This record gives sequence, C-alpha cells and structure tokens, in this order.
Amino acid sequence: MKVVALAGGVGGAKLADGLAQVLPPEDLTIVVNTGDDFEHWGLKICPDLDTVCYTLAGLANPETGWGRVDESWQVFDSVTALGGADWFRIGDRDLGTHIERTRRLNAGETLGAVTAAFCRAWGVGPRVLPMSDDPIPTMVNTDVGVLPFQEYFVHQRCEPCVSGFRFEGVEQAEPAPGALEAIENADAIIFCPSNPWVSIAPILAVPTLRSALAPPPTADAAAPSPLPKLGEGRPPGGRVRVAAVSPIIAGQALKGPAAKMYTELGIQPSALAVAQHYLDLLSGFVLDTLDQQQAAAIRALGMNALATDTVMKIKDDCKRLAEEVLQFLNK
Amino acid sequence: MKVVALAGGVGGAKLADGLAQVLPPEDLTIVVNTGDDFEHWGLKICPDLDTVCYTLAGLANPETGWGRVDESWQVFDSVTALGGADWFRIGDRDLGTHIERTRRLNAGETLGAVTAAFCRAWGVGPRVLPMSDDPIPTMVNTDVGVLPFQEYFVHQRCEPCVSGFRFEGVEQAEPAPGALEAIENADAIIFCPSNPWVSIAPILAVPTLRSALAPPPTADAAAPSPLPKLGEGRPPGGRVRVAAVSPIIAGQALKGPAAKMYTELGIQPSALAVAQHYLDLLSGFVLDTLDQQQAAAIRALGMNALATDTVMKIKDDCKRLAEEVLQFLNK
Repeated sequence: MKVVALAGGVGGAKLADGLAQVLPPEDLTIVVNTGDDFEHWGLKICPDLDTVCYTLAGLANPETGWGRVDESWQVFDSVTALGGADWFRIGDRDLGTHIERTRRLNAGETLGAVTAAFCRAWGVGPRVLPMSDDPIPTMVNTDVGVLPFQEYFVHQRCEPCVSGFRFEGVEQAEPAPGALEAIENADAIIFCPSNPWVSIAPILAVPTLRSALAPPPTADAAAPSPLPKLGEGRPPGGRVRVAAVSPIIAGQALKGPAAKMYTELGIQPSALAVAQHYLDLLSGFVLDTLDQQQAAAIRALGMNALATDTVMKIKDDCKRLAEEVLQFLNK
Repeated sequence: MKVVALAGGVGGAKLADGLAQVLPPEDLTIVVNTGDDFEHWGLKICPDLDTVCYTLAGLANPETGWGRVDESWQVFDSVTALGGADWFRIGDRDLGTHIERTRRLNAGETLGAVTAAFCRAWGVGPRVLPMSDDPIPTMVNTDVGVLPFQEYFVHQRCEPCVSGFRFEGVEQAEPAPGALEAIENADAIIFCPSNPWVSIAPILAVPTLRSALAPPPTADAAAPSPLPKLGEGRPPGGRVRVAAVSPIIAGQALKGPAAKMYTELGIQPSALAVAQHYLDLLSGFVLDTLDQQQAAAIRALGMNALATDTVMKIKDDCKRLAEEVLQFLNK
C-alpha cells in the first residue's frame, strides 16, 4: 500500500512521523510545503522540510517541534553582536543544515536532491520530497501590505490581518521529480493536520499535483466509479482515497495562525470549515473528538468522517493517529 | 606619533596587540594581509583580519592564537555530518563573523567598511584595514601544482615544496581606503613578525603601498636625507623609519611555514635572511637575542639592529616588545 502525505509544519511532521512508524519506508512519500522557504543571513532556509526531516530523524526539538534537539545559539549571538538580523532565531546545529544546503544549491544541486542526500545522512527512511525544486514563495496579503511569509509569520508574529495569499510563480512551477508519480501511484493520500492556507494550499497549487489528486470528472459524473480499496491498485485516471486530518480543534489551531486566518478571511474556524475547504478532494475527514458534533455535517458533504483524539503529544500518539487514519481510509 | 603596522597571522596579531596597549588608538593603523582570504562553505573568510581583530578585542583563543575563545563546534559537526568539507575547521562563534561579513559584502559593503563596523562592535580601538578591498588571492607554486593558499596551508598542511608565490590581481588592486594615507602620514612603519613570503609580501605587492613605503631614490642618492625623528613629521616624499621584527628565531618560525619556505626557495632561514629580504625598505631590524650574533651582519646591510626577546607568550610580552620596538625605531 503506497501512501503519500502532504505536510507543512509541526502537526504535519508529527503525523508523518506516525506514518513512518507504521508503514515500510518504501511505501511512504511525504511531499512537503516549500512556500515558507526564504533566504536569511544569506542562506536558503526551508523550515517545513527541516521540521519534517528532523522529526523523522529524531533530531527535532521536542519542546518547540521545530529546530533541533540539544541546540545551542553561539552563532546567533555572534552574528547579532555584529548587527545581524535577530528576528529569526537559528540554532547552531540547525544552521549547519542551511549552510550545507545553500552550498549544494549554489553548486547546482536541486532542492530534491539535497533533501534526499540529507535524509540518507540522517537515516530518514521514507522519501521526503519538496513540493517543487522551483522557489514558490508564499506572499501574504495583509492590512499592512503584501508580506513575504516569514516576515508575516516570524518577524511580525502573525499580527497583521490577512486578506489572501499568493504562491509566487506557482503557475510555472513543476513538481519536484517523484512527487507527481508518487501521487499518481498512491493508494491513499493524507493531508496532514497542517495549516490549510499556507502549508497544504501551496502544495495543491502546483498545477500538476492538484490535477493528479482530483482527476477531472468523467462524463458519467452521476455514477462515479467506486473508490478502490487500499492496496487494490488505482485504475488510470481513477479516483484515490484522500483523507485530511483537521488542524482545527474546538475552533483553535494547536499551533500557528490557521484559526486566526480563517476568522480574518470571514470564515468561522472549525473542523467543518476545513472539510469544506478541501471539499472536492476528500473521500474522508478526521476530526477531533472535541468536535464530534460536526461529524454529521461533514458526512453531509459527501465524505466519510472519523472523530478521534487527534492531539499528538508524544511519539506514540503520532503512531496511534497514523494507524487510525490508515484504517479509516480503507472504509 | 603615527604608527602603521603591517601584519599577517598570529605573530603579527600579537605585536599589533602590543602596539595597541602602548599607543593611543588614533595613532595606530594596522594594515592586514588579505591574500589568505578565501571562500569556504559559501562564506567569505578572512583569517588574518580575524586573527588581528579577535586578538585586539580579547576574543582570540589563547591556545591556538587563531579562532575564538570559548569556542564550540556544533555547526562544524552538523555540516560535516551532511558531507560538507571538513578540512578547514570553523568554530561556532567564529562562523558568526563569516556569516555577517559575507552578508554585508554581498549587500555591497566593502571589506574595509565591514572590518571597521566589526571593530566598533568588538570595541577594537586602533584602525584595522585590509590591505585592499579587492580580492588578491595568494597562489602558491608547488611541486604538486599551483595551489590556492588555504589549499596549501590548511588542506595540504604546507607539505608541498614551494617554488614561488603569485598574488592574483595585485597589479590592478587598489589599497583599501585609508591605507595609503596612513603610510604616507606615518612617523614609523613596523613590519610585524609575520611570514615574509605570504603575510607581508602580499601587502608590499599592492603597487601604491610599496612605493609609499620606499620613495624612489633622489638624484642625490649618495647623500640621502637623514631620517626624521619620530614625531618630527615626515617631509613630503621623504624617508620614513621602518623596522621589521624577525619571524625567524634560531632558524625556525615559531608558527607556520616561513622557515620551510626559505629552505625550499634555496635560502637558509635566519634573521639575516629576513633582513636581506626587506633590504631596501628598512631602517631598523629587530631580531631575537638567540640570534644576536647576526646583528653585526644585519648592521652591515645599512640598518640599525636590536637584539631582544621577541617571543610573545602573554599579553605583557606583546606590550614589552612593542615598547622596545618603538624606542628602537627612534634611534
């Protein structure tokens, strides 16, 4: 059974880690948002790729969910003492990743190739792919102007009121080698509990990735082909089982600005809102037990729904949720 | 009394530190070799500038003489775990310097401006100038081919046999702003105990710097004008008191390949050989008491000679030697 997970930040990395605990590495591909990538201190930084890889490698800081465990801040202190920018904290071990990645990219390697090499070095089994080797920077429309994502997210602490997003250059972007094939050959796709606006949406905005996820409706739209069971294989151009796990629990995001974004965009943040967000793409939706009263409304959208405990505090939580999602996908 | 010191690595930094302990900061300019500068891990690294600045700032590692005190190696371990180059060790605090310098250079600041800003941040009083804002990489001719300096010096541990040096682009290079004026207005110039071949020679190879140090002989060469006393002022185009401190003691360099280079170039390494090396430029020469039997031969070259203890182990040694050199220069 081949599974593709789409992932962004901390929540996405945790469910990806759960899937990696459950599936043989060759059966799991994680396609990661790169809209958050930016240049800082002259280095290329890929926060979501790093969070996913560090988490799978057991190198992530368990306190923060991002950055590295046993981290120190000597370089940061040294750079900022010289007047360097201090609004984005980079730890020493983490910095090594950015330095070596930047060197390789400048030498002509692709982001996908660099990520694969790093995963080998870190002992990460499943395939981790950037959504694209092309830069697709997320730009945030706000009440203080259009802001590059990290300027909005870190420097301005998500304080500006958002009115929309743009994924710069996405129309011309190609998926990273392997991503399209992985989706086309997947028995199941999982949208991890990542921010729908700025973690999953950029991946879905890559033209060929989206169309591979949601093949155009057939002429006989009134009688769509039944979803194949997991492991049965997917007919060419056929539908695939796709489940999303809600990043919104009781109207709140566990981390990050997803709920604030829904509100500012005029949508009440809820699991139901997330299910509606992904409407045409999903065959199933996983929401937290705290929100189980929304399950009926979600089923009414034409998808299965599973209410379970979706909060992943420890590694075992990630595994249990991954198991439940995989089991649910097959229903 | 205005003093200019020409300096390269560890020995140069120590005497510069001694001079900084003795002279008011506004009276001391240190012009530093940049032939060793190179790019590594995608960053611009200026080993001699950093050694001088760290030493003056009290940030230098007293064990090694280079790099920073209280250093850690987290980034190095992180980069090399990903397959990054491990032949040039960069500590965490030191790395901060390279990151912020590279960022500023890429943003269009000159090396001189960056160095001045760093000196302000580190509380370094005297003016520290690169010999040039233009890159002038030292290339080493060896029995295994032409090697960039750090490839010879660090990667190949000075093992190849040298046959000559080239300072790439020096013919077209301009001195860094302030360097020429400092030499023209100096009451005394000191060649620090740095490697004559690869620390002092690159500075002297910058065309206008050398001619400012050694004005062309007057028509009345038989009766050169007397050297002005320190503090008396220097007549336009007139001679200036210039003293070198020998980096060779008892036929050996305290550190680095200077003696090995002399031997490979067919010259017996000695204080006398250094004095001959700088012949046309010097009014005085300082050698170690271990070599005092060479003083007469050095005086016979037409310069004053002072034999004293030139080994600088602790900060007070640097100060004492600086005082003696300044006193000697006035003779």
